[in-house]
Amino acid sequence: MTDSIHSHLKELGIELPEPMQPVATYVPYVISGNLLYTSGQGPVLNGEFKSVGKLGDNLTVEQGYEASRLTALNILSQANAALDGNLDRIVRCVKLFGLVNCTPDFTDQPKVINGASDLMVKILGDKGKHCRAAVGAPSLPFDTSVEIDGIFEILL
Amino acid sequence: MTDSIHSHLKELGIELPEPMQPVATYVPYVISGNLLYTSGQGPVLNGEFKSVGKLGDNLTVEQGYEASRLTALNILSQANAALDGNLDRIVRCVKLFGLVNCTPDFTDQPKVINGASDLMVKILGDKGKHCRAAVGAPSLPFDTSVEIDGIFEILL
Amino acid sequence: MTDSIHSHLKELGIELPEPMQPVATYVPYVISGNLLYTSGQGPVLNGEFKSVGKLGDNLTVEQGYEASRLTALNILSQANAALDGNLDRIVRCVKLFGLVNCTPDFTDQPKVINGASDLMVKILGDKGKHCRAAVGAPSLPFDTSVEIDGIFEILL
Repeated sequence: MTDSIHSHLKELGIELPEPMQPVATYVPYVISGNLLYTSGQGPVLNGEFKSVGKLGDNLTVEQGYEASRLTALNILSQANAALDGNLDRIVRCVKLFGLVNCTPDFTDQPKVINGASDLMVKILGDKGKHCRAAVGAPSLPFDTSVEIDGIFEILL
Repeated sequence: MTDSIHSHLKELGIELPEPMQPVATYVPYVISGNLLYTSGQGPVLNGEFKSVGKLGDNLTVEQGYEASRLTALNILSQANAALDGNLDRIVRCVKLFGLVNCTPDFTDQPKVINGASDLMVKILGDKGKHCRAAVGAPSLPFDTSVEIDGIFEILL
Repeated sequence: MTDSIHSHLKELGIELPEPMQPVATYVPYVISGNLLYTSGQGPVLNGEFKSVGKLGDNLTVEQGYEASRLTALNILSQANAALDGNLDRIVRCVKLFGLVNCTPDFTDQPKVINGASDLMVKILGDKGKHCRAAVGAPSLPFDTSVEIDGIFEILL
């Protein structure tokens, strides 16, 4: 827990959530070569869904931004577990694919997923600069507002 | 057809469907390095769509589970074609990205995509443990209930 | 600008659009190993969205096809920027993931995304043959009709 990213997290006053365990026959992350894939994460803290519902309906863009920020923390939490607690092994965040639970007339998906993108860069610096897609979904598991999966390049 | 996975399939009494050929200018799979990507597959058997419609409307979760199981068999069928019939070349299933054709109030996407996840682990064992995302879609090609694409790590 | 793909583009009378710059903390492409990932692109030309709305509502399949063709040009434009203007470094287009902004009863996503697939093969030949998924989305950023992201294998 003494790598530079964990030190930076401490300076920022950011604590990673406990990584969620899937309740089915899949796993939260897979390392293949020097790529780390994380399963779709959501706005969960201490086992509780913190943002439920749809953008364009009961949630504001600001609330979506916060949900997507928390989701990115969960992605980093999974990466941390995958990398045995050494986030310095992250070479860079390669990609985020962000889905926003929304109504058919909601078109501000980018502003929502910016919560995740901004967090990734805040924590990882230049290594956090990823490519991404931000799109709408008619519904998401447990009615969470966002689901994001990530790909990282890592040191083996 | 004598590799261990094909033997296991025989023991389980599971037959892989014929791999579907795309009717357009894309291909059913691409191998890049030691990653095998499959195109989005659906619940097809003998050229027929076996599960049509939306979860939350005309289909139950159990029907969705079966559709997603059949879809995973089609993914393995494409992998089998890509690997010249030698499924032992699969190092592991890296990722499944599952989309569920559903109404805006349906939130049980994970239970649906479990049909694919369970099948992958049943057939491939520990090599079948993948990361995944399970999300909603307002509609899918040919009105099929699920579409899933996969990434495998393979031996060259 | 004298590689064979650029010559072929000239013969075809096709000009690549200017690559769009993201307005947030993500980047338009990332190279990891010999994979090039592009951020989700849309039907943009000269900074203007050329196709807005939903398939199944105000847009025909033909209009969607054209939008997806233009989106593929933007993907190639990003690849071109990533590869310092040398498209001959593309070994192949590995994957396209295409989302179609549509109504819940629209099921012709493949015919729409064919605009991108056909363009990729027209320009890159056999190197353009990719695997793909084509799915529906209830809404997309800026209400564009399609969003597609791509993965390419490249020479370093």
